[in-house]
Amino acid sequence: MTPNSRILNYKDLADELLAHDSFAILTHKSPDGDCLGAGLALCYYLRSIGKRANVLNSDGVPKKFEYLAREYCEQALENEFVLSVDVADTKLLGENLEHYADKISLCIDHHGSNRMYAEKTYLDADASAACLIIFELLLDMGYEPRGIIAECLYTGIATDTGCFMYENAKARTHIAAAKLIEAGVNAAEINRNMFIVKSRGRIAAETELLANMRFYESGSVAVMVVKNELIERTKLERAELDGIAPIPMTVEGVRVGLTFKQQEDSEDTYKVSVRTVDIDASAIALEFDGGGHPRAAGFTISGEVDDIVAKAVATVARFL
Amino acid sequence: MTPNSRILNYKDLADELLAHDSFAILTHKSPDGDCLGAGLALCYYLRSIGKRANVLNSDGVPKKFEYLAREYCEQALENEFVLSVDVADTKLLGENLEHYADKISLCIDHHGSNRMYAEKTYLDADASAACLIIFELLLDMGYEPRGIIAECLYTGIATDTGCFMYENAKARTHIAAAKLIEAGVNAAEINRNMFIVKSRGRIAAETELLANMRFYESGSVAVMVVKNELIERTKLERAELDGIAPIPMTVEGVRVGLTFKQQEDSEDTYKVSVRTVDIDASAIALEFDGGGHPRAAGFTISGEVDDIVAKAVATVARFL
Repeated sequence: MTPNSRILNYKDLADELLAHDSFAILTHKSPDGDCLGAGLALCYYLRSIGKRANVLNSDGVPKKFEYLAREYCEQALENEFVLSVDVADTKLLGENLEHYADKISLCIDHHGSNRMYAEKTYLDADASAACLIIFELLLDMGYEPRGIIAECLYTGIATDTGCFMYENAKARTHIAAAKLIEAGVNAAEINRNMFIVKSRGRIAAETELLANMRFYESGSVAVMVVKNELIERTKLERAELDGIAPIPMTVEGVRVGLTFKQQEDSEDTYKVSVRTVDIDASAIALEFDGGGHPRAAGFTISGEVDDIVAKAVATVARFL
Repeated sequence: MTPNSRILNYKDLADELLAHDSFAILTHKSPDGDCLGAGLALCYYLRSIGKRANVLNSDGVPKKFEYLAREYCEQALENEFVLSVDVADTKLLGENLEHYADKISLCIDHHGSNRMYAEKTYLDADASAACLIIFELLLDMGYEPRGIIAECLYTGIATDTGCFMYENAKARTHIAAAKLIEAGVNAAEINRNMFIVKSRGRIAAETELLANMRFYESGSVAVMVVKNELIERTKLERAELDGIAPIPMTVEGVRVGLTFKQQEDSEDTYKVSVRTVDIDASAIALEFDGGGHPRAAGFTISGEVDDIVAKAVATVARFL
């Protein structure tokens, strides 16, 4: 924890936002439904009350999430207040935003592993999604989310909970979903695009990954390795691999699932997703200088693939 | 509609139950989480207020749902009031219960295609699950579902909505889920067992079924044929195939998915599940004397497999 980071109370969060007129909202690289949903919902809301705001992301908006940005256009900002949403660590800002790392005035996050890098931090690790924090905040500020803001918020809440399947889907999460559906969100259509429909390439890739899954520790650890070669051969866009990390967890008996994704720009580097049933995933990730949530975390590792898989499995074994 | 069937108002439903002391609660064959959850929740509740009740099913309780019946034991009943839950048609009672077909005093159901076979019928086609009807009924009767009753109700609501993924998951559904989680239901564990974990045999079978899926009408109709040979070769229990019907719908571009399951006792007979994106599945099923919901329905058909697939696809084509 940076000694300079000040914990912000929930009751001061709205005032902090209302005190400024121009916002740069930073979201994490390899953006998902939650960081984009939360960033864009907040941006649309701030604009609706007469402020100026942009959402910045190192990697742009993946095709899958373009519907969230359909009412978005970049604005000219001056003296912007720099705010990050759903970003646990400045390392996650990515190349194009890394120059902001020491200029972040406020961080709003739900990752217990947050590195407290911002001047002020509002952290609610009990919230299943950053979108849940933003949803409740807007309600408290007197705004009933509707239209595209409601769609953004529903998207983040649904995607970060695996469509209400995981441990982080609590009563509070379902109440937010109920209100957003009541407000007119077409949840079934969003769910269909987020969770159900897959391209034929993705299905072919999944079939192959399932067939080649490796098991360790009497079947309690499952490892899936996604190489660039597979992505090229099945003609997948890399963004189509979002949501592949829970696959090892579908196999009976598996307590920890590790998915190694070879990086496009560096053949020796793998982004590893950790998913767990009953073990602290963020503690495992922390062993490799990563972080995340109790049941979903991640880290980056470099080396020959068999060596790094062995190293990761040996580390996981200590947690079983 | 049988002219004798009387539509029961919601406000009379509780009185109807309170007026009797001994209940035989019938559920449909090939039982799923919703009929078992609703039947058992109602049974446990009636017993808790001093009445006698049993849940009857032609096929018993599949292993996957045994946790719902862990506090259940058969009671001796006299002059029982015969009630069906989640049974749209007496054909669905199955062989062991068919003698009840003309003796059903009350039917509680959420299928719009209900055949109105009971003396009195309470039908709420807007309810995403029979369990949602029972949940709201118990609340109105002054009982806050908890313990195993809450687990039964959550199970039915989650399974009938594909874990809140489908069109039938409305605000009302999420509010019920919130209350049940608040009441202590371990939703994540139930979801894990219902939706996430699969045996290695099931995974092998799915992989093969996906690879052999057939597409018609420019890819808008997908057909999956599950033969007994596959079930035997992958050493699957038949109940492990529950939840396989949505698989054809995962392929991009598919609007209607048909899953043909060869029946164990009759090689020429197939149970067909119809799933749709934007077409009335129950209307398709009705063409083959079946029924169900707007997006999930089913029918039974006999013949040589290629012929019956062609026949079903030709019928579906008329709905595209």
